[in-house]
Amino acid sequence: MRNINEDTITQAVLAAMSDCGNDRLRTIMTSLVQHLHSFAREVKLTQDEWLYAIDFLTRTGHITDDKRQEFVLLSDTLGLSMLVTTQNNRKPSECTEATVLGPFFVTGAPEYENGQDISNGASGLPCFVSGHIRGLSGEPIAGAELDVWQSDEDGFYDVQNIPSPGAEVQFQARGRLQTLPDGRFHFRSILPEAYPIPHDGPVGQMLDALGRHPWRPAHLHFWIKAPGYEPLITHLFRNGDQYLESDAVFAVRSSLVVDWIKHEPGIAPDGTTMTEPYYTLDYDFVLQPAAPAQ
Amino acid sequence: MRNINEDTITQAVLAAMSDCGNDRLRTIMTSLVQHLHSFAREVKLTQDEWLYAIDFLTRTGHITDDKRQEFVLLSDTLGLSMLVTTQNNRKPSECTEATVLGPFFVTGAPEYENGQDISNGASGLPCFVSGHIRGLSGEPIAGAELDVWQSDEDGFYDVQNIPSPGAEVQFQARGRLQTLPDGRFHFRSILPEAYPIPHDGPVGQMLDALGRHPWRPAHLHFWIKAPGYEPLITHLFRNGDQYLESDAVFAVRSSLVVDWIKHEPGIAPDGTTMTEPYYTLDYDFVLQPAAPAQ
Repeated sequence: MRNINEDTITQAVLAAMSDCGNDRLRTIMTSLVQHLHSFAREVKLTQDEWLYAIDFLTRTGHITDDKRQEFVLLSDTLGLSMLVTTQNNRKPSECTEATVLGPFFVTGAPEYENGQDISNGASGLPCFVSGHIRGLSGEPIAGAELDVWQSDEDGFYDVQNIPSPGAEVQFQARGRLQTLPDGRFHFRSILPEAYPIPHDGPVGQMLDALGRHPWRPAHLHFWIKAPGYEPLITHLFRNGDQYLESDAVFAVRSSLVVDWIKHEPGIAPDGTTMTEPYYTLDYDFVLQPAAPAQ
Repeated sequence: MRNINEDTITQAVLAAMSDCGNDRLRTIMTSLVQHLHSFAREVKLTQDEWLYAIDFLTRTGHITDDKRQEFVLLSDTLGLSMLVTTQNNRKPSECTEATVLGPFFVTGAPEYENGQDISNGASGLPCFVSGHIRGLSGEPIAGAELDVWQSDEDGFYDVQNIPSPGAEVQFQARGRLQTLPDGRFHFRSILPEAYPIPHDGPVGQMLDALGRHPWRPAHLHFWIKAPGYEPLITHLFRNGDQYLESDAVFAVRSSLVVDWIKHEPGIAPDGTTMTEPYYTLDYDFVLQPAAPAQ
């Protein structure tokens, strides 16, 4: 420890953890330090580049608040979120695949009955969503809880539409509901559209410098929970979207790309007479049985 | 890009950078993404651990302001700062070795003449510091600029002693001076003492969880600049300090451990009659010639 140089520094940092009583933490930090140091050696990181990184992380922290999570955006755009999601969601191929949570989920969304309109005034073409939640053997899951959230036709989530700094969020196009006894759910909302992730901060500067665009293909988020099953965090993506091949957060899975079907004005699934075109989406989710308690 | 899974995600992220026009940036980000993903795979990072990391980085950002740099502390305590310092300061063994800048340097320190007292009222035992700045052939460097800074006897830097939030820093134990025509410098200050790095934030929690202490051995910081020579950022460490073997930021180099000599009351080097014990430190720095312009 007394004569640290570029060859001995890594071992010195690892040795300093020898009194750590938490084996998992020591495993994680050992790997983290080894990779962090290998990265710095491999690119021979300069003092100026290191200082830029310190400033980048500082700005990322300072732009983050309870409405905006720039570190999640950073993790998403570097593919870390999708890697962590997939390696923690290995499951039988019959089960619906998981994808990233994203930075716009919030707890405490309003509760709705099946059939209600969760858009709550958000702008967009009307869309009727329905489906079933089932288990691996096809059994319907009654009383499963769904959290659903999406952006409006301008690509903004309700949490981004704050009238003034510090004002309360008006929940729109976001809600919670439960499946019926036959495992079915259905609600009205709006058609999701492609949108750019917030790119007026450090992550946007990074994407720009890397020659990358900030767009995500249109999608609808689901977080589904039911006793006896693994929770499922996923999205459904709109087939035909131009950004399916270049999602800024690398979250697209083929099995999650589905058709939103366009209908001419007429009688909607809920019996409403629609005077404008509307869309329907029908999708059945299959949950994985919960892992046995360890 | 359409069917990302845990095996294809890394390649997908690298492929997304193919339009990056900045070769150095692409080199850095390629290595960063590869190591970040390898780390997550190696430890099979869980969703909860990922979320903890997001929260840790967020708190690290939020505690950072113009007086406190928690990301520098994080880099220091993980050994990254020392690695970057050493790999960017390879030099002939006759040259004084570099070490980390640390989070307490600030620009605009007061200017002093040789012989003046830079402590400006900071608490501590009196100390008279002197030395020469020379080149590799022993040539004295006149007019070299020194930035010097240190903590007081309680282990605090002036920037940590803010009377009230937002108040101006009163510079203490920090100053700038220039070498005389024979390359000599001398000033009065105080004896540095060992101190813990700020450990009431995320980095302190990390050290605690890893079974590490936050202490640094007593030291005096120097940043020396002279035309025609490479700048030198370094410290001198007090011989005999109990933390020389376990510096929390891994910055100790044997060649930088020196004796502060204790003297009984009497006539100090500057002619002052000292009625209390005082210390002297004498050290000669050797600068590396500047690299030729590229």
